[in-house]
Amino acid sequence: MAASAPTRERLVTEAMRLFSTKGFEATSVSQIEAAAGLAAGSGALYHHFKSKEALLAAGVDRQLDRRRAMHDIRALFAGLGNLRAELTALGRYLLTVIDEEIELLQIAARTPAGRSTRLDSAYTALAEGLNAELAEWIAAWAPSLPQQECAVMAAVGVNSILGTRFATGLFGQPDTRIPDDRYLTEWTQLFATRIESLL
Amino acid sequence: MAASAPTRERLVTEAMRLFSTKGFEATSVSQIEAAAGLAAGSGALYHHFKSKEALLAAGVDRQLDRRRAMHDIRALFAGLGNLRAELTALGRYLLTVIDEEIELLQIAARTPAGRSTRLDSAYTALAEGLNAELAEWIAAWAPSLPQQECAVMAAVGVNSILGTRFATGLFGQPDTRIPDDRYLTEWTQLFATRIESLL
Repeated sequence: MAASAPTRERLVTEAMRLFSTKGFEATSVSQIEAAAGLAAGSGALYHHFKSKEALLAAGVDRQLDRRRAMHDIRALFAGLGNLRAELTALGRYLLTVIDEEIELLQIAARTPAGRSTRLDSAYTALAEGLNAELAEWIAAWAPSLPQQECAVMAAVGVNSILGTRFATGLFGQPDTRIPDDRYLTEWTQLFATRIESLL
Repeated sequence: MAASAPTRERLVTEAMRLFSTKGFEATSVSQIEAAAGLAAGSGALYHHFKSKEALLAAGVDRQLDRRRAMHDIRALFAGLGNLRAELTALGRYLLTVIDEEIELLQIAARTPAGRSTRLDSAYTALAEGLNAELAEWIAAWAPSLPQQECAVMAAVGVNSILGTRFATGLFGQPDTRIPDDRYLTEWTQLFATRIESLL
């Protein structure tokens, strides 16, 4: 079975690429086979996955594995004791995670909810995970702020980072927008000024 | 031709609904005919529109018309002279516009870029229009802030409002999230505190 590993990987990669461009429903097994270098329409895909759904689930799981690896990076810049430096690093971290997950976000946006439980819960896990990480960081800096308020502020922060990537990643707008460093400078100012007002 | 007006309207409404759920590509002329109460596969749609593309263009145009009507509402709350009151009203306005445009945003997200120039430019017009309106308002309150900085702050503001609607509108997440009024309260605090720090 060792020889089939690269084919399996290739099927996952090509399927995720096609799902993210066309959506899950509009992608056929034939098209995935062709993109992965197998004979289109031969059913060769079924030697590796029992269904298109199983292939999507494998792709989501691979993405979640990668996400777990990124998760530990956050420890590198926590507790520096400088509000703006930590916030800038956090903003970069959020942008990086979203860039890593953009294919998954595209698939989720282009596939009707309820089609794949794995996919729906992957989006929830991503958004709630990022919200929780930012809320936890805010709570450490502003201990007087009720936990629910920290969660709301975090949601505004994560949404504004998600929103900037959706323009290019979901709506196909040309990437002639505000450069990341300028966007993060203002994002940092906004949240730093707000947190300082609570100290 | 008067009798055909309701059918034409119904075709636009049903097509936009189908495009927003399934995407433009995955929606067939037959399905649109069936949804509009015409004989599926009869080609009756072509008595009203020369192609599926023309139908999409008509839907986008109808949406842009409605958007123009909303645009004037902003004048109602400008210049009240109270930073937080104006900002709260602006936040509600942004949420309302995005709710009005959610079908168009869904279609844009679920249809590959380049498929319809009308659609691509509608998204750009919406996002840039909202950014420009918020930037103009910020500039009036913070005249010392360079215009480019106003634009960046406005982008963070609009993106954070867009992002909160994408969770439910694009990713089919259940609407058990932060209530709008709590979200807007924090959004207002963030931007008001930032603008006050510049005065």
